[in-house]
Amino acid sequence: MTTAAAYAAPSAKAPLERTTVERRPVGEYDVRIDIKYAGICHSDIHQAHDGWGGSQFPMVPGHEIAGVVAEVGAKVTKYAVGDRVGVGCFVDSCRECEYCLQGLEQYCVEGNTQTYNDRDRNGEPTYGGYSSHIVVDENYVLRIPDGLSLDVAAPLLCAGITTYSPLKHWNAGPGKKVAVIGLGGLGHMAVKIAHALGAEVTVLSQSLRKKDDGLRLGADHYYATSDPKTFEELAGTFDLILSTVSAPLDFGGYLALLKTDGALVNVGAPEEPVSLNLFSLIGGRKTLAGSLIGGIAETQEMLDFCAEHGLGAEIELISADRINEAYERVLASDVRYRFVIDTSTI
Amino acid sequence: MTTAAAYAAPSAKAPLERTTVERRPVGEYDVRIDIKYAGICHSDIHQAHDGWGGSQFPMVPGHEIAGVVAEVGAKVTKYAVGDRVGVGCFVDSCRECEYCLQGLEQYCVEGNTQTYNDRDRNGEPTYGGYSSHIVVDENYVLRIPDGLSLDVAAPLLCAGITTYSPLKHWNAGPGKKVAVIGLGGLGHMAVKIAHALGAEVTVLSQSLRKKDDGLRLGADHYYATSDPKTFEELAGTFDLILSTVSAPLDFGGYLALLKTDGALVNVGAPEEPVSLNLFSLIGGRKTLAGSLIGGIAETQEMLDFCAEHGLGAEIELISADRINEAYERVLASDVRYRFVIDTSTI
Repeated sequence: MTTAAAYAAPSAKAPLERTTVERRPVGEYDVRIDIKYAGICHSDIHQAHDGWGGSQFPMVPGHEIAGVVAEVGAKVTKYAVGDRVGVGCFVDSCRECEYCLQGLEQYCVEGNTQTYNDRDRNGEPTYGGYSSHIVVDENYVLRIPDGLSLDVAAPLLCAGITTYSPLKHWNAGPGKKVAVIGLGGLGHMAVKIAHALGAEVTVLSQSLRKKDDGLRLGADHYYATSDPKTFEELAGTFDLILSTVSAPLDFGGYLALLKTDGALVNVGAPEEPVSLNLFSLIGGRKTLAGSLIGGIAETQEMLDFCAEHGLGAEIELISADRINEAYERVLASDVRYRFVIDTSTI
Repeated sequence: MTTAAAYAAPSAKAPLERTTVERRPVGEYDVRIDIKYAGICHSDIHQAHDGWGGSQFPMVPGHEIAGVVAEVGAKVTKYAVGDRVGVGCFVDSCRECEYCLQGLEQYCVEGNTQTYNDRDRNGEPTYGGYSSHIVVDENYVLRIPDGLSLDVAAPLLCAGITTYSPLKHWNAGPGKKVAVIGLGGLGHMAVKIAHALGAEVTVLSQSLRKKDDGLRLGADHYYATSDPKTFEELAGTFDLILSTVSAPLDFGGYLALLKTDGALVNVGAPEEPVSLNLFSLIGGRKTLAGSLIGGIAETQEMLDFCAEHGLGAEIELISADRINEAYERVLASDVRYRFVIDTSTI
């Protein structure tokens, strides 16, 4: 066992505070990673606030982890000390079900082991990336290519793969018109990735407040959804709409913006049920779908793609003592576009 | 102009009665068809009762038409007098939009011309298949292969294509597990077609009342949705679920029956909005979709497929004076599985 410095929420909605947690000894297939940077994802806040129920405390959040390998187990073959690596939303899975065997560990039948707020296969609690180091099985570790700085790479481990995976699955690329609902942590990566994939990208945001940013990040068009004319003008336009927001949307209105055979894919979602008239799907063979992060192989593909295209997150680097302030600002949508903790300050 | 015998609804919810309508002269590209059989689709009743609003009266319903060519226009090349032909849900479209050009006339941007309860491109009312003859542009006429009797072929023009198109689009076939919700006019064709495509077919019906029929028609399994154990036992089972019912469903429950990447496709739909928790889509990259009949080329493909596999509808042949009684029985779900009118009795 090793003792790791960490920032943890001692109980639901309590401010995070400095503490220590015990990490398991480095097993035969394990990698010990000195964490350099950890992104703050909106879902960290949901879980620290027990917004989805079932949270375990103390909780060390953080599933957007970038660091450097400090130690490897005897049978590790994929990584060596000094390698630049990342860890995302899960650190293990059953490895045997049809989805794990297909590289779709995010949909593991038994449920994968979440990087924090979960129990590992031995029943021990998992602690996330707001910490000095972490021990992870090599099969759930990603390589961060040299071309990517670790600080802007960290958010790719969740925000990057969450948007890359559906953009690839629903064939965003040349000749395709893609809309992104919401320009936040997920949305700004969706714009960058969809643009790099060659699609024509439109941002659909509540207001035009971030329009300059959106166009700079790669959007071709930018519309305010508070303006009813947006829905008239864009009717029947898009092949794919990616919703990155968790606010309840008027799905009928957005589905009408799709072409025949278009898909509206949700990576954000409101906690309450949404209401939908099925005729808005039938009239153009349209799809309403959802997507959840991505598998290990696809996450590596995403990192390689982002390195090749020079895509990192737009970040505001903070010291650990500003985590609670950052949470307040995320809840107020006051971040462009991801807080990243410099974990040397923990 | 020619005068056709017909059965028409004089006003909303009034009983249908015998009358005559005027058909246009046979134009250069037109085919005059002596109608032999016309299926009764549930949507005929919806429209005759003005259930969707905007109905035009007098209304001659019927978009499941089978007959024989009696006359062809000077420039007709596709059909000759004596050919066995069918007409489905639409008789024209803009022919120029991206969907018409792709053979997806059912999604024509301008809206296609419905076989009845619509206005043609000249503004004249369209009258459907409960009639002695009809005049249709050859490009919207289908060929009924010799292997198919005209009476059991008639319902294929709507119930057949409505189920064939999504089964093909969502890749029903060998190795795929397909569920069909509802064993009515649409559902019984879905079972036959999915089975002929090579899929493993399960019927999900309210009760086991029609189980013997379902298995005879090609289903491998039959479950009652009134039994909560059905939803436990079948969790995560299906690649594709085709809902042929218009009752509001518990979509969360049905989506849980899908495998990762599975699709729940609606060809029936309740008039009211449905409620849905998006997490039931996100957790397994699932799709909720809709599908509307099929294009002309795909309808021909469906007819050829049905002839090759010996698939016709299960019908109850009636004389025209029993149309109103048949409507009552359709509303009471008392038909196995499609009423077809012998139009010689009109």
